[in-house]
Amino acid sequence: MRGFFIGKIGVMTINPLSNKSTNAQVVDAIIEARWIAPVERKQAPLLEYYSIIIQADVIVDVLPTDDAKTRYTSDNVMCLPEHVVIPGLINTHVHAGMSLMRGIADDVTLMPWLEQHIWPAEAALLAADYVQDASLLSCAEMLSGGVTCFNEMYFYPQATAAAVNQAGIRAQLGLTVLEFATHYACDADDYLQKGFDAHDSWRHHTRISSSIAPHAPYTVSDKTFKKIVTYAEQLGLGIHTHLHETRDEIKQSELQYGMRPLQRLQKLGVLNPNLVAAHGVHLLPYEIEVLAEYGCHIAHCPSSNLKLGSGIAPIASLLNRSVNVSLGTDGAASNNRLDMFAEMRLAALLHKGVGEDATIICAQQALEMATINAAKALGLEDKVGSISLGKQADLVAVKLSDAAISPCYDPVSHLVYTCGREHVTHTWVAGVLQYNNGVYANIEPIELKEIIQKWQLKHKPFKH
Amino acid sequence: MRGFFIGKIGVMTINPLSNKSTNAQVVDAIIEARWIAPVERKQAPLLEYYSIIIQADVIVDVLPTDDAKTRYTSDNVMCLPEHVVIPGLINTHVHAGMSLMRGIADDVTLMPWLEQHIWPAEAALLAADYVQDASLLSCAEMLSGGVTCFNEMYFYPQATAAAVNQAGIRAQLGLTVLEFATHYACDADDYLQKGFDAHDSWRHHTRISSSIAPHAPYTVSDKTFKKIVTYAEQLGLGIHTHLHETRDEIKQSELQYGMRPLQRLQKLGVLNPNLVAAHGVHLLPYEIEVLAEYGCHIAHCPSSNLKLGSGIAPIASLLNRSVNVSLGTDGAASNNRLDMFAEMRLAALLHKGVGEDATIICAQQALEMATINAAKALGLEDKVGSISLGKQADLVAVKLSDAAISPCYDPVSHLVYTCGREHVTHTWVAGVLQYNNGVYANIEPIELKEIIQKWQLKHKPFKH
Repeated sequence: MRGFFIGKIGVMTINPLSNKSTNAQVVDAIIEARWIAPVERKQAPLLEYYSIIIQADVIVDVLPTDDAKTRYTSDNVMCLPEHVVIPGLINTHVHAGMSLMRGIADDVTLMPWLEQHIWPAEAALLAADYVQDASLLSCAEMLSGGVTCFNEMYFYPQATAAAVNQAGIRAQLGLTVLEFATHYACDADDYLQKGFDAHDSWRHHTRISSSIAPHAPYTVSDKTFKKIVTYAEQLGLGIHTHLHETRDEIKQSELQYGMRPLQRLQKLGVLNPNLVAAHGVHLLPYEIEVLAEYGCHIAHCPSSNLKLGSGIAPIASLLNRSVNVSLGTDGAASNNRLDMFAEMRLAALLHKGVGEDATIICAQQALEMATINAAKALGLEDKVGSISLGKQADLVAVKLSDAAISPCYDPVSHLVYTCGREHVTHTWVAGVLQYNNGVYANIEPIELKEIIQKWQLKHKPFKH
Repeated sequence: MRGFFIGKIGVMTINPLSNKSTNAQVVDAIIEARWIAPVERKQAPLLEYYSIIIQADVIVDVLPTDDAKTRYTSDNVMCLPEHVVIPGLINTHVHAGMSLMRGIADDVTLMPWLEQHIWPAEAALLAADYVQDASLLSCAEMLSGGVTCFNEMYFYPQATAAAVNQAGIRAQLGLTVLEFATHYACDADDYLQKGFDAHDSWRHHTRISSSIAPHAPYTVSDKTFKKIVTYAEQLGLGIHTHLHETRDEIKQSELQYGMRPLQRLQKLGVLNPNLVAAHGVHLLPYEIEVLAEYGCHIAHCPSSNLKLGSGIAPIASLLNRSVNVSLGTDGAASNNRLDMFAEMRLAALLHKGVGEDATIICAQQALEMATINAAKALGLEDKVGSISLGKQADLVAVKLSDAAISPCYDPVSHLVYTCGREHVTHTWVAGVLQYNNGVYANIEPIELKEIIQKWQLKHKPFKH
């Protein structure tokens, strides 16, 4: 792994004057920010003129810049006088391997979208090199938009791991399980075995973790769910699944199993604080109680739910019952942006409108959903999700001085309602500056261009 | 007025080889585009490798680039090999004079937002220079986001006209009318008189037109509405008002007038095909019939309606009854972006989700709402809103080749679901390139910086 910090491009400035102090401790990096939004309960929501001190991959101090100048010194000082620094955004539901299908069939309802467009496209092209290429494109898109970690569910997780490894991003990769055969695996046991092989391959990787990812209640049998619960417990892994995304899948479950999918998962022992359920669009009031009782997490994907005509998840009710809600983009075939700024804004706006109450999901809550709530959902709360001492230096700088987004009265509010991902200037993962004003530390533009051209020609777009 | 075309910055390339033809007609400008989305019924939704031929401020031909090369020649040939060119976007409800209050009070419901934040701020600072400065900032924001025309409602319209004049954008400026006194005017007659004086001042301006803009049924009396109807008829002007934005204003009307606001406007003769009603969030089925019957236009402002907790307008029902629906951003104090790409995307997504039908508002419809429907609403259909022979050359180029938005299978769909305003590279108004990759023809960055700094210090932001 290369990175801006270790010499590829000299973007960090040496600043001997402002950090000259005989007793100052030498550290790997200092970020001097106009504002910091730490998303950390022990701190105020907004710190002004503060610095973040980094040793190796860890945040070792957060303190007023005036104090930092006397206590720390570094060859790498990044001055960000017009920026707010936030914890890296965490995308808790995505299919990074699908980015080459971005916009391949828009304005189409979920089941025909899957059956007539996505699954045939996958049947034609799915392979490890396809997934690795698509995943690298997704990693590039996400890093440039301030996403430092994503929760993936797709085929060929080792191919995605290779892309994650190159890009220098953080990921929790789903060991995807389905009953039906694909190019990747022939049956549920084969999916599981391939998943565990993948899991073994990155077991000691510092930025890659695993979950078991049964695709959905409508594509996974009771028997397989039971196995998954046992394996998850034995291996200490979380479970990531689609849940109650559409009315149709609920009706189908009632016909096939005599109960709604959530109830079925409850009976099968799938519900617990290690479950990340994507969507949760259609939830009855008692089901919200069940999710709260079991401590399950909902990965809310507002753009995708709207775009596929699935509906609007009852997020205000979930939050009222203290269910942990994080945000996800879903895949680029149904969004079509892996853009967590868009999801923060949409989540904050949408539920105000639905509830006819402008105080539902304030800006700080939306930012929490994209950071600390997401870290909780993935079981990574001790490691990421806030700018806190001892946590990984996964950080994002957002420039607030462009005229088109000025003036700025409240940087946290601005992040959610005014900024877009285009205002992200720097993205660090584990202390390494992986994205800096349009340039990636470890991804070449020509590489992405070749990937896009190669695969675009092989996909047949949908025509109305 | 200066402009890129007439020599300020030489961005148009002279291309003698590709346009050398002895019989070729010399024209002012040629735009060679990879794609054109003309939003013109006589054309396909998407043209590939076509050129737009411009003489002075008018589109004089749209034809395949191969043919254009033999038939036309120009010193100004703009090659856009990775771009889609669209009609300039038209923002049909905005308060450009409010951009200096961007984000001044987020997460607050409409009435307290107005009464406790916006109106006190206006009471403190409202003046012609304030409005001119705020309007110039809005014009800059809109030009950079592909907006070529806006429908304004605010105080001091002559100050906004000065900003419009400088920026080189097109606008329909509301002659705002209220009953209560502000720094701008003391009573309804005073507002009207000042409005007509303003209207006279730009009567022969080619890019500025007027509407009469009674603020809302809850701020304007019956008597004044009647006068406005008469004046509008005499002067051939449209009427622009807020309508049924919140439940509260409807309840208040029922108490005060014994009827809902729409019914009151019907009785007062306000309803006709020259009325642009912003919002229309709360409409009963029979009220949708009334709007359809009278040929009124709804300026749908989805971001603002959600953000203020007003609700979700029944757009699918309005479209089913063939009510003409256009899009608006509303002011920067309630959005907080004057971003028509965000409104197109949100409109297309939101109503799919509400109706649980992914086919509601397809990409082409969303683009029409932001262009030709908007032109119809403003009575400017013969002049702008599509890339058509004889119409004004109000054009926008959007670059589709960035990796983060690739691949692209359908440029129209991409515009709505994938692109953001950050992908706008060029904006022409009346044949003049007013914005080119971050640079304005007639607005200096330092000018905007000074405006922002000057007024930001005078505003007191809201603190939760």
